Amino acid sequence: MSKPTAILLISCPDQRGIVARLSTFVFERGGNIVDSDHHSDLQAGRFLGRIEWEDDSDAAGRVLLRQELAAVADPMGGHWELHFSDVVPRIAIWCSRQEHCLLDLLWRHQAGELGAEIACVVSNHDLLRRHVAPLGLPFHVFPVTAATKAEQEQQQLGLLRRERVDLVILAKYMQVLSGDFLRAFPDVINIHHSFLPAFAGAQPYHQAHARGVKIIGASAHFVTEDLDAGPIIEQDVVRVSHRDTAEDLVRKGKDMERLALARAVRLHLNHRVLTYANKTVVFE
Amino acid sequence: MSKPTAILLISCPDQRGIVARLSTFVFERGGNIVDSDHHSDLQAGRFLGRIEWEDDSDAAGRVLLRQELAAVADPMGGHWELHFSDVVPRIAIWCSRQEHCLLDLLWRHQAGELGAEIACVVSNHDLLRRHVAPLGLPFHVFPVTAATKAEQEQQQLGLLRRERVDLVILAKYMQVLSGDFLRAFPDVINIHHSFLPAFAGAQPYHQAHARGVKIIGASAHFVTEDLDAGPIIEQDVVRVSHRDTAEDLVRKGKDMERLALARAVRLHLNHRVLTYANKTVVFE
Amino acid sequence: MSKPTAILLISCPDQRGIVARLSTFVFERGGNIVDSDHHSDLQAGRFLGRIEWEDDSDAAGRVLLRQELAAVADPMGGHWELHFSDVVPRIAIWCSRQEHCLLDLLWRHQAGELGAEIACVVSNHDLLRRHVAPLGLPFHVFPVTAATKAEQEQQQLGLLRRERVDLVILAKYMQVLSGDFLRAFPDVINIHHSFLPAFAGAQPYHQAHARGVKIIGASAHFVTEDLDAGPIIEQDVVRVSHRDTAEDLVRKGKDMERLALARAVRLHLNHRVLTYANKTVVFE
Amino acid sequence: MSKPTAILLISCPDQRGIVARLSTFVFERGGNIVDSDHHSDLQAGRFLGRIEWEDDSDAAGRVLLRQELAAVADPMGGHWELHFSDVVPRIAIWCSRQEHCLLDLLWRHQAGELGAEIACVVSNHDLLRRHVAPLGLPFHVFPVTAATKAEQEQQQLGLLRRERVDLVILAKYMQVLSGDFLRAFPDVINIHHSFLPAFAGAQPYHQAHARGVKIIGASAHFVTEDLDAGPIIEQDVVRVSHRDTAEDLVRKGKDMERLALARAVRLHLNHRVLTYANKTVVFE
Repeated sequence: MSKPTAILLISCPDQRGIVARLSTFVFERGGNIVDSDHHSDLQAGRFLGRIEWEDDSDAAGRVLLRQELAAVADPMGGHWELHFSDVVPRIAIWCSRQEHCLLDLLWRHQAGELGAEIACVVSNHDLLRRHVAPLGLPFHVFPVTAATKAEQEQQQLGLLRRERVDLVILAKYMQVLSGDFLRAFPDVINIHHSFLPAFAGAQPYHQAHARGVKIIGASAHFVTEDLDAGPIIEQDVVRVSHRDTAEDLVRKGKDMERLALARAVRLHLNHRVLTYANKTVVFE
Repeated sequence: MSKPTAILLISCPDQRGIVARLSTFVFERGGNIVDSDHHSDLQAGRFLGRIEWEDDSDAAGRVLLRQELAAVADPMGGHWELHFSDVVPRIAIWCSRQEHCLLDLLWRHQAGELGAEIACVVSNHDLLRRHVAPLGLPFHVFPVTAATKAEQEQQQLGLLRRERVDLVILAKYMQVLSGDFLRAFPDVINIHHSFLPAFAGAQPYHQAHARGVKIIGASAHFVTEDLDAGPIIEQDVVRVSHRDTAEDLVRKGKDMERLALARAVRLHLNHRVLTYANKTVVFE
Repeated sequence: MSKPTAILLISCPDQRGIVARLSTFVFERGGNIVDSDHHSDLQAGRFLGRIEWEDDSDAAGRVLLRQELAAVADPMGGHWELHFSDVVPRIAIWCSRQEHCLLDLLWRHQAGELGAEIACVVSNHDLLRRHVAPLGLPFHVFPVTAATKAEQEQQQLGLLRRERVDLVILAKYMQVLSGDFLRAFPDVINIHHSFLPAFAGAQPYHQAHARGVKIIGASAHFVTEDLDAGPIIEQDVVRVSHRDTAEDLVRKGKDMERLALARAVRLHLNHRVLTYANKTVVFE
Repeated sequence: MSKPTAILLISCPDQRGIVARLSTFVFERGGNIVDSDHHSDLQAGRFLGRIEWEDDSDAAGRVLLRQELAAVADPMGGHWELHFSDVVPRIAIWCSRQEHCLLDLLWRHQAGELGAEIACVVSNHDLLRRHVAPLGLPFHVFPVTAATKAEQEQQQLGLLRRERVDLVILAKYMQVLSGDFLRAFPDVINIHHSFLPAFAGAQPYHQAHARGVKIIGASAHFVTEDLDAGPIIEQDVVRVSHRDTAEDLVRKGKDMERLALARAVRLHLNHRVLTYANKTVVFE
């Protein structure tokens, strides 16, 4: 798939003719649709769609396209986004002391899997700098205490703005972001090391071990003010047995964390995820 | 989802404007699209789509709809089908001596999961009549030998025509259907008790046991003249260990056979499966 | 495996020489061990073991065996059970209005998968009698209200005693058993239609749909007084998507309920499950 | 589990009293068994066992232990191995141009998951040196052509001897090892990028894409002279759909390759794998 594409994501009240109007819009501008997927949640009365078409217009053409699309999509009364596959999103990876999710994302980035640029890595500790510095990526440390958190978040928001970051990935970042932060920068994906909503909160593997479950999991989700309660994008699971200690669960779970987080990030960066009613629609 | 729907499945050479023309067609006839999914296989240059919209027209309206749709879809130069969700398909379940897939389908039918009418059950043995007769379903026995096979297949085709059967399900029917039969009646789904293409042919669980695999599977596929080589609709797998004998593999595999076959049948009966290039596209 | 076997399950404080003493005991009585599996939970300081050996002694020989074994095992200060593979356990299946788990167990029983005798089927409704009566199995109805529950449970316990039932299987029995009942008859396995501990309690599929999870599950567990909090024996999961309504989750979940319950029951009937600290050890 | 352990792996003709003799042997030497697992393949008439007990004897004590064990185990007429958990195995990772399995193993090594020392990394190309050198690990390049292969294998064997390597891991090493090499150094684990025995040989993902399978997999196996036909240790699978191109299969498959290879290596390094009859017994 060599040609760049335009991607429209739209969520709006269900109504007759949406697909026709949008696909006709694309057709009349000479676009060839390569993938389109629409779903109506009849219970919620909501239309949710994604259209991707080949588009090699220049910057001016894209400004125009966005204006013309607004004329069609705005009256539908919902939320829509237009993306272009050749505009590479910029991400910031946030970590604390555990390296597995960070290393996994760094490796996928080098392998060309993510389709994003890593603007910077952020941590509340200096520990993982040694994995980041050799790659020539900026590594920023913001130590956080209860007293300094509000101030540090302002600094972090400043960094995200300066670096034009599109998505923050919490790759085992063990701090809770405030509501103020999330209102200022809402595009944040977290990996929680349990099969949510089971074992939200602290020490999920130890909770799972104590409960004696036979399967454990990991959940990648958008971050909201409610801890571990945001819209789930992707989950994965692995079997465990009575022979597994809590430490074995941690080890096995790390693999699921890496997979679930990487898939969720890739889906979002490919503009395949919409949220509504604290859920996600994943077009895949 | 109380209103009946019309469902269009289409496979044709990829070309600009297909989605626009089809969705506009639906819109101009007052249809409300509840689900639509399109995919272009860029390598094969093929467009594959499914559109489902609410439609409560009467018989005459549907004849007209089909004619009008032909005027739009025929020029696209491919294959298309129009179905209506309130037209209940008629299926024939074929079995031999093993009952698990038959019983599973009978149970799902009673539970309203299949969305089909069971026209009859066919077997080359009388053994499973006892499961079918109490439900008031016709049970037809066609003993098959090398000498009688061609003649019996003619009888079977006659039965399928008389009973207006839309789909034959080989639920562990241990006979190979001839090319003549399949040309006369091509809509046949089979369940093969291995993770195809591994272990095609006879005794797949014993082959798997001898090979020492750690995962076994089952594959539901459309039947073609090449044994176990038709387009795969659905597969499922389960872990096994060195403690499992070949008989344990048979037992564990049966559960996967039941699940994979039931899912494949349901997907097909919901008009969610298209085939091209010996593969399936499954819109789910 | 044609010869009958004796099976010892033991849970006791960890101590030196347990395996040696037990396997020497078996050897000195001429037994050939066909399977043995031991595990020490070092954190809990607990030894958990299962030994299975060929044994074709007669009734008198088995009484003697049990006495001699007591002399070896009792001093270990834990809990032990001795079973014989040719003593077929008797089970009672309890159901309410949903038939899928009942039908699945009835089918597996007919297919020889369970290795148990069905003593009777119990329900608080008459609805499912039609599936049970044709098989010649007793079907007992005990309507339960808040007022009659205690009295009905006494009747039920009487039935279990008269029928010499070893295991009660709650196959979607939608009533909570009292602590009194469970103290009198503790061997009860339940299937809960969620991936416990997520979505304990009522309407788990609707809870799961509202939460927007990407994977749902089912959990088979021993019943304790705490609702849905007993030791988990087996769990299974299946992926779901935004296209799945709560009703689709119910349908997909039923398959997992059937599998998880059947596996748990079979493991227990094969004397492969030990419980300690509200967890299970599953020797498989 | 802080104390070191001794681990006995044994495969021999099935016979009465094996467990008793072995566990009594351990007990009489004061060993506390922490894990033991035995299985009789009744069809093959083979006993397969693993016993692990706490052992903190010194070097001289271990020489003695091995001699005394020989007196018990040799007469059983099979194959046995004695390992000690505090003897860290030395591994050599062999790679070609693809880095994902190499990087994964390097990461797990740093995270302490493997329980092995990396003696060196070997490749037929210089490409991946940049990932290895910064860690201070030796990286040896042996370019291989049809003409030089035999000579290079002698060099490689010399390196393995000098470096006292216990296990060679083919982490996407795209060369076939000769029978001569394998007779001289048989402990080699390979990762094949398909669900064996399906799609053995070249380009398995492209084969899988052409066949239209709905699930793909990866298989970690011991290497034998027959290409991709050695005993399978571990397999893993992932679902794919019609939307996945062959390149998507490659990407999704890489994750399964990493997981299956890492698990197989860890199981083997923990002395949990026995082979017989071209199969593995995995004690886990």
